Amino acid sequence: MCALKRLPVRSLASGAKLDIPVYTIKGCNPHAKRAYIQSSMHGSEVQGNAVIAALLEVFEQTPPEGDVVLVPNANPFAINQKSAEYTLGRFDPTTGENWNRNYWLPTTRVTQRPAWKTLQRKVWAQMASAIRARLEDNLSFGERLALKLQLLTVGADYVIDLHCANISARHLYAPQYAEACARYFQIPLMLSIPNDFGGAMDESVSCAWWTFWHELQAQGYPDLPPRRELPQGYTLELGGHEVISRDAAKRDAAGVVNFLRHKGIVAGRAQKPKSGFVCSLQDYKTIYSRHAGHVDFTATLGSCVAKGGLLAQTLQFGRTASWQPTLAEESCIPVLHHSSAVIHEGSELMKVFTKVRKV
Amino acid sequence: MCALKRLPVRSLASGAKLDIPVYTIKGCNPHAKRAYIQSSMHGSEVQGNAVIAALLEVFEQTPPEGDVVLVPNANPFAINQKSAEYTLGRFDPTTGENWNRNYWLPTTRVTQRPAWKTLQRKVWAQMASAIRARLEDNLSFGERLALKLQLLTVGADYVIDLHCANISARHLYAPQYAEACARYFQIPLMLSIPNDFGGAMDESVSCAWWTFWHELQAQGYPDLPPRRELPQGYTLELGGHEVISRDAAKRDAAGVVNFLRHKGIVAGRAQKPKSGFVCSLQDYKTIYSRHAGHVDFTATLGSCVAKGGLLAQTLQFGRTASWQPTLAEESCIPVLHHSSAVIHEGSELMKVFTKVRKV
Amino acid sequence: MCALKRLPVRSLASGAKLDIPVYTIKGCNPHAKRAYIQSSMHGSEVQGNAVIAALLEVFEQTPPEGDVVLVPNANPFAINQKSAEYTLGRFDPTTGENWNRNYWLPTTRVTQRPAWKTLQRKVWAQMASAIRARLEDNLSFGERLALKLQLLTVGADYVIDLHCANISARHLYAPQYAEACARYFQIPLMLSIPNDFGGAMDESVSCAWWTFWHELQAQGYPDLPPRRELPQGYTLELGGHEVISRDAAKRDAAGVVNFLRHKGIVAGRAQKPKSGFVCSLQDYKTIYSRHAGHVDFTATLGSCVAKGGLLAQTLQFGRTASWQPTLAEESCIPVLHHSSAVIHEGSELMKVFTKVRKV
Amino acid sequence: MCALKRLPVRSLASGAKLDIPVYTIKGCNPHAKRAYIQSSMHGSEVQGNAVIAALLEVFEQTPPEGDVVLVPNANPFAINQKSAEYTLGRFDPTTGENWNRNYWLPTTRVTQRPAWKTLQRKVWAQMASAIRARLEDNLSFGERLALKLQLLTVGADYVIDLHCANISARHLYAPQYAEACARYFQIPLMLSIPNDFGGAMDESVSCAWWTFWHELQAQGYPDLPPRRELPQGYTLELGGHEVISRDAAKRDAAGVVNFLRHKGIVAGRAQKPKSGFVCSLQDYKTIYSRHAGHVDFTATLGSCVAKGGLLAQTLQFGRTASWQPTLAEESCIPVLHHSSAVIHEGSELMKVFTKVRKV
Repeated sequence: MCALKRLPVRSLASGAKLDIPVYTIKGCNPHAKRAYIQSSMHGSEVQGNAVIAALLEVFEQTPPEGDVVLVPNANPFAINQKSAEYTLGRFDPTTGENWNRNYWLPTTRVTQRPAWKTLQRKVWAQMASAIRARLEDNLSFGERLALKLQLLTVGADYVIDLHCANISARHLYAPQYAEACARYFQIPLMLSIPNDFGGAMDESVSCAWWTFWHELQAQGYPDLPPRRELPQGYTLELGGHEVISRDAAKRDAAGVVNFLRHKGIVAGRAQKPKSGFVCSLQDYKTIYSRHAGHVDFTATLGSCVAKGGLLAQTLQFGRTASWQPTLAEESCIPVLHHSSAVIHEGSELMKVFTKVRKV
Repeated sequence: MCALKRLPVRSLASGAKLDIPVYTIKGCNPHAKRAYIQSSMHGSEVQGNAVIAALLEVFEQTPPEGDVVLVPNANPFAINQKSAEYTLGRFDPTTGENWNRNYWLPTTRVTQRPAWKTLQRKVWAQMASAIRARLEDNLSFGERLALKLQLLTVGADYVIDLHCANISARHLYAPQYAEACARYFQIPLMLSIPNDFGGAMDESVSCAWWTFWHELQAQGYPDLPPRRELPQGYTLELGGHEVISRDAAKRDAAGVVNFLRHKGIVAGRAQKPKSGFVCSLQDYKTIYSRHAGHVDFTATLGSCVAKGGLLAQTLQFGRTASWQPTLAEESCIPVLHHSSAVIHEGSELMKVFTKVRKV
Repeated sequence: MCALKRLPVRSLASGAKLDIPVYTIKGCNPHAKRAYIQSSMHGSEVQGNAVIAALLEVFEQTPPEGDVVLVPNANPFAINQKSAEYTLGRFDPTTGENWNRNYWLPTTRVTQRPAWKTLQRKVWAQMASAIRARLEDNLSFGERLALKLQLLTVGADYVIDLHCANISARHLYAPQYAEACARYFQIPLMLSIPNDFGGAMDESVSCAWWTFWHELQAQGYPDLPPRRELPQGYTLELGGHEVISRDAAKRDAAGVVNFLRHKGIVAGRAQKPKSGFVCSLQDYKTIYSRHAGHVDFTATLGSCVAKGGLLAQTLQFGRTASWQPTLAEESCIPVLHHSSAVIHEGSELMKVFTKVRKV
Repeated sequence: MCALKRLPVRSLASGAKLDIPVYTIKGCNPHAKRAYIQSSMHGSEVQGNAVIAALLEVFEQTPPEGDVVLVPNANPFAINQKSAEYTLGRFDPTTGENWNRNYWLPTTRVTQRPAWKTLQRKVWAQMASAIRARLEDNLSFGERLALKLQLLTVGADYVIDLHCANISARHLYAPQYAEACARYFQIPLMLSIPNDFGGAMDESVSCAWWTFWHELQAQGYPDLPPRRELPQGYTLELGGHEVISRDAAKRDAAGVVNFLRHKGIVAGRAQKPKSGFVCSLQDYKTIYSRHAGHVDFTATLGSCVAKGGLLAQTLQFGRTASWQPTLAEESCIPVLHHSSAVIHEGSELMKVFTKVRKV
């Protein structure tokens, strides 16, 4: 059973009102865990919408065990803003604020320490109250949108935020302690992130609970669950932005379903994770272009490049035409590159995994 | 011998001054015809720059028979304007004017009718004077830029304007009467254009001479050359914008060299044209999207789609997710599509050749 | 009695649907003429919306004699697109097309020649049919929007399109033959336009009827009305864009009401026009900036500047700071200037009336 | 004596190279303090350029006592980027990053504690080394630009960063402890800011020294100067962006000169500060719009509005037109408002001083 609600989020100058579709699929098993899956918070990053469409189809055929909330088109304002044929989707065109840096760490204060299940419910209730209270304030649209979505995530054990990135190979962000689980998404490139809150949706879940877990541990709380049992957030980067593929979405959705199987939210046996590469967030390097010109990105995204290997070459017109190489300063895996071949000095040329661990 | 001049084109508010590199390669044979090749007038359409780089390399090894002028980065202002990582390259960000609609039809008035070679030189001299006179006026940057470039084309027998188009298969625009020659570019998709001046560079050459030729014909001018001998303009669309490939540029350059061989500007025997498809400009159809949403462009660019075949499918979120098909209303060849999967109702979904002739 | 309908115009990628409010106020006198008043086709030009609000208030108190249709927010898509805090309102951010160049001249073919009133009704019916037929085609959003609005103007004797212009003094565009009537708007600066259709709304009305009138005249049609009795279009430029003033809107609305009084659409005696200046369209000069830098626009908009007078001065930083003057090349009235002090060489610095007639 | 150097800052894709003019005026008195004055880091905020032009004129007539470095057009990239006629000046159009959040707090480590003058020189030398070392890293253009400018500020006692703000009354940011001095700028609205570094230029000076001063104080350093003697940064907001006035610039420059007189950098007696209002940074409130529509900003900027007073009214079209009021929730002074009348729900409507102190 799939129920649809429309969450109003913004009135526009023309009088139009924007809302977000929220699909709730009731699980068959009330004891199963719950998932929240969102896509397109950055309006130009649309492949996740196709993945949610594929998941809706899957669950129509076979309902999940646990409740699943699916929220495509999470930022209708960003989706609708255009510059030439492209979508001004990553940051607010008015303020420059990255749409995925407005989430919030609700402060919770629990005085009693009941058993974990009860405690968790109490904390969720406090988070929901705190978010609702903050929504009463005079806030920017970006803050309000993030809080409204965050409110939908409260009560979910797994929060999966579907993004895309420039021109890129598929990769994901997972909390350090959840690497083993994260591999069930079947995405071979993983960023392992620490407990530092920077305003992203996945962190708003992971960091809140991670910090709380450390407090409980310090206090010697007896019913402390293993960290991997905590509510946790993931960001999946499903290839380049501005493109959608229904066929690829089926494969992407299969990875998400595999993760949900591993967590018991979907029935059946999860496939074993494939091998891949893990990189710590501090080793995820941005290469800013030292050359201005037109770039031919020669390295294959997702494949290792040895130190000194050619990553890209930039065309310049001086006395004659010349191609300036950008070489790998250390062994690395290129993950994404600039969306355009036209690049100024000091723009983000590409991002690479360094010091990777094979898993 | 390759000589470089820098043509100043615009002072900017910061005090910076923009110029354009103009490479002139002297041919070995003073009787050979001359070519003018330009790229990136639409700043985001950069593959032509790589082609010019490849041509510079070719000519460094083997100088051409006829003079060749090569002008990459023809619109430095457009190349440098950014919106997110993309290049605001097709139209003036301030006025919305398409940069390739500012060329001009200089009026010429020849009273005597000497032999064709002499007459042609006279007309070129008049065109140059007319353009120089107009450059004295108070003009917009777009008009002035176009005129300055147009002045460089005067005296060239073949003017080749290198563009790219959205996400697209390679194709070219050629004057109707020059289809046979145009096939030597080895680009299988050709648009055959009539003698209607719409402000584009290729037309500014083709239409001026085409009209003049008809006047001469009407007057019974005795030394009238065949139309295919007239100075003429071509626009080559070298795939999608915002990308560059040095390897593909070698192939693209080989096509240009093949055309120049056919015209005697490069020594050697031209390869025979491959088979391809020709479409008249009036049969080049824009399909505006009837559906708003996220588009999966399923049709292969450059390949025939039968009437009723699937061109694209658009994801929408209503009661549940659905994919709205866009079907071919007639047999066609999709040539280009929207640069983004994110599309509003009534935006250009794709452009298709219809009523094609196989050649 | 004011009736509201909402005209749907565009579905957006997010699933949102945009519509336009259409207020119809029934006149008391069925024999009175009819007016159509629209605002904000260029999304950033909003003062006209305030004027329509003021007119709604006026007509709520005192209904007009003739029917009046009021259409504010005529381009909700353009109104909602943002770049920084500004509105991308003058042209389609995707294609660069000026929103006010998409109107159409419907062809009409009348074989019989009944009395003028009947003939006019027949022509209007044909225009409506032609527009409806064209709306069946596969069109761009811009074309479709213009046609939908144009359909609303059919049957109106006076079509008043409310715009604003950069930073500007109030001025208006009127058909040459209607100068005397146009002065009743009480706007002292008037552009007198010829019968050349360039795609604007006012022209789509004026030119269609003007041409038809000439045909009838040539055919010796006996019931030919004076030209000033033809259906006609006006464009009013109500000061700078991006600003709104409720107080100024009352004054602007009073001018519109004065015109409507003069035409019998509002009861009462119109005030006599104030004196002003008329400039023929071909004498309306754009001054493109010869200097790049930062501009102090020193001339007072709407006031005469003698030949050689200072129009603007541009700050540049060379060896030291210097201010480059732009002087009037002929006696003129500055009407509008660039919206920003930051200007590149060859951008539109200002527009001026020249060869004005005092009326 | 005014010396000009050009600081290269960025190569662009077209091959153009951008630089910044740096004017250094040698003071007559080697013992006088030194000032650094910069403008237009946000490319659209240009009035400061006119102020620097006015200061150059002043100093040409009467050289200052102390050295003054003047850096107009500090961000040529931002100055040159256009969207319609406006300047994309406040944030990087590619990344959304505010150009004035990239400055850096260089860490200094001083083991010896000589007399203050000597100590100060040592710290400046360390800061310069640290900045130079960081400039060796692979950095974004925004970071590199900020560091290059910051390097120019090292050694200056007073760093004055000239900005503008939306549509606004003149106001300034000053470190809490320097309120008394700051009043000599003769700008009646002052924001008093604490020792929290947020990445702005003024803070990069004030916070570095302020923190260092606290360390020295804690260590009982004997030659501790009063805080107001520390090197310090100010941000002056000289009215709205996108406009320039040479006349107003003379008045603005007179205020700056008055401050420099007070500090002994310019000879002569400073005028006594006029009365004004001070607001603590935490009491500077942003009002996000609760209404979408078209706004008439009715409150006078810079003047007190009582609790419940009308700040703005927003036009909406529902059943009929209506104006939604935004009232002051507490007594306040409106300082700036949105640059456009077109506003969406949750955009920044205006910013107001609350809890002001009259000085």
